Amino acid sequence: MTSVREAIGVFDSGVGGLTVLKVLAKRFPDESFIYLGDTARLPYGSKTLETIQLYVEQNIEFLRNLGVKAVVIACHSACSAWIRKHPAHDMSIPIYEVITPTCTEALKISQTKRIALFATQATVNGKAYSRLLSELDNSSSLYSQACPLLVPLVEEGMEDDPITQLIIERYLTPILKNNIDTLILGCTHYPRLIEGFRKVCGNDIAFVDPGMTVAENMSLDMKAGHLKSKTRKKDEAERTIQILTTDLSDSFWEVAQRILHPITVSYPLLVNLRA
Amino acid sequence: MTSVREAIGVFDSGVGGLTVLKVLAKRFPDESFIYLGDTARLPYGSKTLETIQLYVEQNIEFLRNLGVKAVVIACHSACSAWIRKHPAHDMSIPIYEVITPTCTEALKISQTKRIALFATQATVNGKAYSRLLSELDNSSSLYSQACPLLVPLVEEGMEDDPITQLIIERYLTPILKNNIDTLILGCTHYPRLIEGFRKVCGNDIAFVDPGMTVAENMSLDMKAGHLKSKTRKKDEAERTIQILTTDLSDSFWEVAQRILHPITVSYPLLVNLRA
Repeated sequence: MTSVREAIGVFDSGVGGLTVLKVLAKRFPDESFIYLGDTARLPYGSKTLETIQLYVEQNIEFLRNLGVKAVVIACHSACSAWIRKHPAHDMSIPIYEVITPTCTEALKISQTKRIALFATQATVNGKAYSRLLSELDNSSSLYSQACPLLVPLVEEGMEDDPITQLIIERYLTPILKNNIDTLILGCTHYPRLIEGFRKVCGNDIAFVDPGMTVAENMSLDMKAGHLKSKTRKKDEAERTIQILTTDLSDSFWEVAQRILHPITVSYPLLVNLRA
Repeated sequence: MTSVREAIGVFDSGVGGLTVLKVLAKRFPDESFIYLGDTARLPYGSKTLETIQLYVEQNIEFLRNLGVKAVVIACHSACSAWIRKHPAHDMSIPIYEVITPTCTEALKISQTKRIALFATQATVNGKAYSRLLSELDNSSSLYSQACPLLVPLVEEGMEDDPITQLIIERYLTPILKNNIDTLILGCTHYPRLIEGFRKVCGNDIAFVDPGMTVAENMSLDMKAGHLKSKTRKKDEAERTIQILTTDLSDSFWEVAQRILHPITVSYPLLVNLRA
């Protein structure tokens, strides 16, 4: 088994961050991963900033104590809280959040700088995306849409359901009137719905998947030597992916397998962060 | 202002229990109420039994310390946990939970004893309704349907939306094949959707609203002298309804006002149960 010290830690408030893990696991096939789903304390979105910051610190500390070489914060609410507390990223190991590379990428691909953000109510209210986008390019315009129904639809496995399509249309129609050319999938669950979004937008809109942008960022850091990369040697065992959760329900495991497919992982381990 | 010592405490994990508060406030127009929405720790449904039991005890203790004369547990997950820990209801003030009176009422009105339960996944998994119904009448049959999409639809204010109607039909259709004649609205949010349910079922199915059954139970206790009742004296100030929450977001207040309408209450007070 690969040493934990060579693994990359990923955490989220629940199951959604597995979409980010899946992107990373495909992009870096020799890297091992430890995923922490803080299901006992989800959802982060409805908590106060101070509470989320405390949880983020505890989760990072927990993963660091396991010896991971880097931590990826997949949860957008957690990223937003982290950016506000640790703007200088002053940790002994690299900490990656999804918001900064996603804003950079959105501005890179947008021609009109008219960008849409689909996210949870908490992420929209938190304004991390709007603050960062105008810092990076003050001529850009952000049109935000909170989509509270999309997470439960994904967790129900209704990605291809006509009802889900109706709801996506409902959320998209008013936003498309703003002549946006780029749409940020600002919640870990939404990449599961990209086909549904495409059915409404056609190919006129470019989608930005935060999992892809953070993977690209990490790849650049590996090339630059800021993050140690792993290449499996001949005869060496395959990489491992371990799922940890703070509260373990049947539905977590069921949804987790659905999201990760075709990647297979062993049954999650229950861990206690409160001790 | 009416003394807190004469008020009835009601608690829920969030905003949904306000449907129960609304029923009680209408039924007992002279009674004062204190409602506690434990929003900082919601949802209870995904927590372990031990964790929910701890939260329930803390919430009851908090309301007792305020001096309420009784506590109503509105949250079904909390009721389920409470029943398993405190079957004898061994508290110094009356504690009301919604599951027992709801099961009794469902069995009273059902001709066929073929009963449906619509609830969250946690309430269905917890089996409190199925255990209690078969204890009360072992010839009864319960058909349970978890409806995870209904809570977010209600919180989004989409009660009368065609999309919500499609989702209600989706949930109801397979259950109706079991020739049920009674349907328990086993989540605090669902009474907001009763018109949508009626559109699918017509008048063939009787609905049981847990808020109504607990109000009836309390009314009987008042008549029997087990619970002190309040009748406003001439020239006495009107009763008060105070909302407390453990985490306060704009959306809580917005949804709360929508649910309570036309009852008006003052802006919620933020309280800390963790101290």
